Amino acid sequence: MSNSSPYLITDATLATMVPGDTAYGLLRNAAIAVQDGRIAWVGQANEVPDHYADWQRQPMQNRLITPGLIDCHTHIVFGGNRAMEFEMRLNGASYEEVARAGGGIVSTVSATREATLEELVEDALPRLDALIAEGATVVEVKSGYGLDQETELNMLRAARRLGKLRPVTVKTTFLGAHATPAEYKGRDDDYIDQICIPALRAAHAEGLVDAVDGFCENIAFAPAQIERVFKVARELGLPVKLHAEQLSHQGGTALAAQYGALSVDHVEYATEDDAKAMAAAGSVAVILPGAFYTIRETQMPPIDHFRAHGVPMALATDCNPGSSPMTSLLLTMNMGCTLFRMTPEEALAGVTHNAARALGLADRGQIAAGMRADLAVWDVETPGELAYRIGFNPLYIRIYEGNQ
Amino acid sequence: MSNSSPYLITDATLATMVPGDTAYGLLRNAAIAVQDGRIAWVGQANEVPDHYADWQRQPMQNRLITPGLIDCHTHIVFGGNRAMEFEMRLNGASYEEVARAGGGIVSTVSATREATLEELVEDALPRLDALIAEGATVVEVKSGYGLDQETELNMLRAARRLGKLRPVTVKTTFLGAHATPAEYKGRDDDYIDQICIPALRAAHAEGLVDAVDGFCENIAFAPAQIERVFKVARELGLPVKLHAEQLSHQGGTALAAQYGALSVDHVEYATEDDAKAMAAAGSVAVILPGAFYTIRETQMPPIDHFRAHGVPMALATDCNPGSSPMTSLLLTMNMGCTLFRMTPEEALAGVTHNAARALGLADRGQIAAGMRADLAVWDVETPGELAYRIGFNPLYIRIYEGNQ
Ligand SMILES: [Zn+2]
Ligand SMILES: [Zn+2]
Repeated sequence: MSNSSPYLITDATLATMVPGDTAYGLLRNAAIAVQDGRIAWVGQANEVPDHYADWQRQPMQNRLITPGLIDCHTHIVFGGNRAMEFEMRLNGASYEEVARAGGGIVSTVSATREATLEELVEDALPRLDALIAEGATVVEVKSGYGLDQETELNMLRAARRLGKLRPVTVKTTFLGAHATPAEYKGRDDDYIDQICIPALRAAHAEGLVDAVDGFCENIAFAPAQIERVFKVARELGLPVKLHAEQLSHQGGTALAAQYGALSVDHVEYATEDDAKAMAAAGSVAVILPGAFYTIRETQMPPIDHFRAHGVPMALATDCNPGSSPMTSLLLTMNMGCTLFRMTPEEALAGVTHNAARALGLADRGQIAAGMRADLAVWDVETPGELAYRIGFNPLYIRIYEGNQ
Repeated sequence: MSNSSPYLITDATLATMVPGDTAYGLLRNAAIAVQDGRIAWVGQANEVPDHYADWQRQPMQNRLITPGLIDCHTHIVFGGNRAMEFEMRLNGASYEEVARAGGGIVSTVSATREATLEELVEDALPRLDALIAEGATVVEVKSGYGLDQETELNMLRAARRLGKLRPVTVKTTFLGAHATPAEYKGRDDDYIDQICIPALRAAHAEGLVDAVDGFCENIAFAPAQIERVFKVARELGLPVKLHAEQLSHQGGTALAAQYGALSVDHVEYATEDDAKAMAAAGSVAVILPGAFYTIRETQMPPIDHFRAHGVPMALATDCNPGSSPMTSLLLTMNMGCTLFRMTPEEALAGVTHNAARALGLADRGQIAAGMRADLAVWDVETPGELAYRIGFNPLYIRIYEGNQ
């Protein structure tokens, strides 16, 4: 179906994800009127207003429809892969041996710098396609493996191009403050001032930046260094987010909340005070179980504090070549439930409504009038099944901007 | 390509999985001659004997070829699903509340008994197809949710039919000694004698049984009860396997080894003595990380003992509706590496050569002359990549009995 002719989806169960009296905002025997790529009306099939009643009907045989899935934290643009390092580690190599063999983030930075724009796009496409095959309609993509101005911009150009090559919305995030490159070793502040901030300005001038991110950690940047980047983001009118409290507590969450961050991501070591600050700032906690699983972390993110203080929780793949080479949002949902005891409803909200909030997207992530007609239709009976299965894709069809 | 005309695969990297000097039995710039569904010759592309040199060529652009994958432990035939129970537990329900709501294995037994043969087949097909989509060419399927004669036989009939509906080899395993049904509660011995053993004889008479399995555990059957079933298996000339030492040490492994078991499965609580007994008996240790992950077990299987004593290790999905609703062998490989620190080479051997051994299949699981031409061709450069990625399927084509 094309979005040029309006149509009426019928015979569907909807997980609207609109908060209310029923779990998942569930509507049975429901219908959705779609026009011009947007949802014109949603409701019970026996209450379709006359205006939509004679639109072409598309019955869904009682399948479940959810909002299109949203992966709000990925690093899918990069050169090379880290399978050699994965294998060396499992064969007993030390970090030093891996480093000497050219492993670690350094190898990804080298491979990304060597890649052309076309190669970056070509390498990322199978990862994007894997996400789309599970119903993703929005994917965030970060820079952060260039660590020089030209490559940081190239990564973001590749991300923008991905969004043109596939029917999917790509949101770009500038992550120059991801790591200090070898040529600035020991000079983190110089890297921030001489490379990261000028690259951010240049990327913004080229229209490549939807948000600004950083990695606040004892192995990366201190809050004061991140704040210099955030100040420039504020000056440029760009929203911020932050990788914070992943491996230790550094205070990045408090800083991010102070800057009204869209999200604070990882947050295994966040405290109850951090949760309060996030709630006050309206920041989403982006939970990344793929990285937790891969690095065999044992510190659980403070889910109960987030619940108690009303911090919205999103879930994302964190797809990256080192700590989370994962391209499945369904598996991410299962891991959120299995590893962190999130409920299946929280997991689905985490890849729809709350993921949209983490990206500042007001018209995605729910099935409601006025929202974009980005939908996923599933061969399941209940929404809980989406998080329950492991390594199984029950997608029937994906609808993007009203188009199938 | 049809298996009626012989052909020559060229321009491939082969992970032959034939033990030798190189990891994975790796051959670069290799060729495979395929005739009548079997591998006629394997070797370097520049050493192709004249006899095969003019066969129709199929170049693989240096893709990686492995043996077709083998899932040697599944329960993919069952009725219903357990998503409701998954969701109740995560919403804080107690085991009693779940049981009162009809959850647990009881619910699967009810749904399986209510299902027709056709429904069992129809429900299992998407699970089988998910395994096939990742390159599986052999899938084992167990009974064990009937727990009455007619349903146990129906499950095995469904399994046999699956093997006719898809180009895949299905190996059937009788698992009547899986649990005691409600109608025999407190009378485990009566169940074994009055239902399980007669059902085994009937299933065997109908040609439905390739191997005999049991669940030896404090919540299931004691070694002495399992042994009564094994004695009948021996009388019938059927090989045995056993779910043993999953949740506690019950001595099932020693018993299984004594009966020359093809495999002992789960084995988290197996001891070094168990490993020695398995090595002496030639039993394969079937490692099931999906169940370990799902039930959040912390006791790791004794991988080092298996290595030290030369116990072959297989990996399988254990696909079942309760403790491992997983249908991905690639994810199983990743979990074997990530959770149990198996090497990527052990993981690949675990779903090829050693999985074939666990099923008593001598002509599968390696790329070598005389073996079945069951192959998986992957869009990767190195075999380590198969275990490295999470939730990503790089299969290019699958070849079953020489056919694509
Ligand atoms: Zn990240
Ligand atoms: Zn099992």
